[in-house]
Amino acid sequence: MGNRGLRSASSEKVLLSLVTKAVKERDLIQDGDRILVAVSGGKDSTALAYALAAARRAFKKDFTLSAVHISTDFCSCCKKAALAERLEGWGIPFDDVFVPVIGRLKPGRKMNCYWCSTQRRTELLRYAHAGNFNKIALGHHLDDIVETFFMNLMSKGELATMPIRLAYRKYPVSLIRPLAYVEERQVIAFAQDAGILKAACTCPFGTNSARRDMRARIGAMTDGSGDVKRRILHALSSGAEDLLVDDDGREQILP
Amino acid sequence: MGNRGLRSASSEKVLLSLVTKAVKERDLIQDGDRILVAVSGGKDSTALAYALAAARRAFKKDFTLSAVHISTDFCSCCKKAALAERLEGWGIPFDDVFVPVIGRLKPGRKMNCYWCSTQRRTELLRYAHAGNFNKIALGHHLDDIVETFFMNLMSKGELATMPIRLAYRKYPVSLIRPLAYVEERQVIAFAQDAGILKAACTCPFGTNSARRDMRARIGAMTDGSGDVKRRILHALSSGAEDLLVDDDGREQILP
Repeated sequence: MGNRGLRSASSEKVLLSLVTKAVKERDLIQDGDRILVAVSGGKDSTALAYALAAARRAFKKDFTLSAVHISTDFCSCCKKAALAERLEGWGIPFDDVFVPVIGRLKPGRKMNCYWCSTQRRTELLRYAHAGNFNKIALGHHLDDIVETFFMNLMSKGELATMPIRLAYRKYPVSLIRPLAYVEERQVIAFAQDAGILKAACTCPFGTNSARRDMRARIGAMTDGSGDVKRRILHALSSGAEDLLVDDDGREQILP
Repeated sequence: MGNRGLRSASSEKVLLSLVTKAVKERDLIQDGDRILVAVSGGKDSTALAYALAAARRAFKKDFTLSAVHISTDFCSCCKKAALAERLEGWGIPFDDVFVPVIGRLKPGRKMNCYWCSTQRRTELLRYAHAGNFNKIALGHHLDDIVETFFMNLMSKGELATMPIRLAYRKYPVSLIRPLAYVEERQVIAFAQDAGILKAACTCPFGTNSARRDMRARIGAMTDGSGDVKRRILHALSSGAEDLLVDDDGREQILP
């Protein structure tokens, strides 16, 4: 495995140790897995691909790793060649699939995040199925999971977030999110040290303003504390019945 | 029922309609219930006692209502006489129980909120048991429930809050929180209009600073929106398995 552009920085150690911890604690990888990493070209999924390859030995599992990029009809930044070269340098075979996201819009419909992600997710599942991959690794990190939790809680009134491990009912494939323990600032630190950040691709439709707003609110709520975010993640693992009705005497004396 | 000091204000209608909604939707009162309202002398439990008496007809249940105040060895403000008079004016029999909260402290131990509330809660349960009450009504409102949720989430890493309805395992008594749908600002508006606010008793040990801090953070997080708080309450009713593992394909395509 080449360490191209990587100083052996502490940011790398942090990334690898948190990914290893998540993979082991959450049982994300088994022997025989054929894992497909969905790489957007952004910092998160690139860091994920690197971490899965570089920490492979620590997982103590026998698995294969490939990467796929979903190209669209609206992304022109196209640093795909550099992405392919980087991934192959890390020993990860790379493929590219084209999806005409705008081309598939029904007449009169406007482009939006939901449509785009649905189209790309569908194509990703098809590609995984056709290639006999049984796992898809996505680059969502701790802040993404916490944000999604709060958005669902406050906007939809639902207890829900992105699962770290999800088995599709209709397809013989699971999603895994090995960056679940990694804070975004830790991904950024790694991406900076590794020279990935400046090559990252961003969506030309710009930012998701609701998510950006929630990110600022969570920053104020948590003082940006990683410990608080990890406690939230811990809570989301605990499971809960209807919290407002307890016919089983969970509360003994208090509150 | 006397309406002493009460203009028939919209704040009263809001209080009564939200308490009625909670009682009906959450099935808080049944025929034959003997309900004990725990009144501290503060605005919340006083408003609760009034609402349970004043909205009695709307509940369409046959139940009795009494109130008890737990006096301690550190509260000197003692507006008990006025409280008793007010409650009896509303048709609610009133009793007072003394608990030496400080006197029960073991040598060297300091007074704290947990100790005090445990002592008072224990005494309340004993009183209810001795008096054959099968339900204790507590004056916690929507903001209390939301705050407790966020404190448990962020400080303890637990999905937990004050239940609206709780059956004790060890005692033949349930707790109910009929103010669960009422925002604190709505309680305050009622208490102001009803002339209760200025008579309210407050803890001489002062504020719970962690709770006050959380209250400010939640204000910023939600913009103080009652709709957001109600969506949070709705989410807490939905129940959830471990949100981070889904082996049942809850997520079909997204996120």
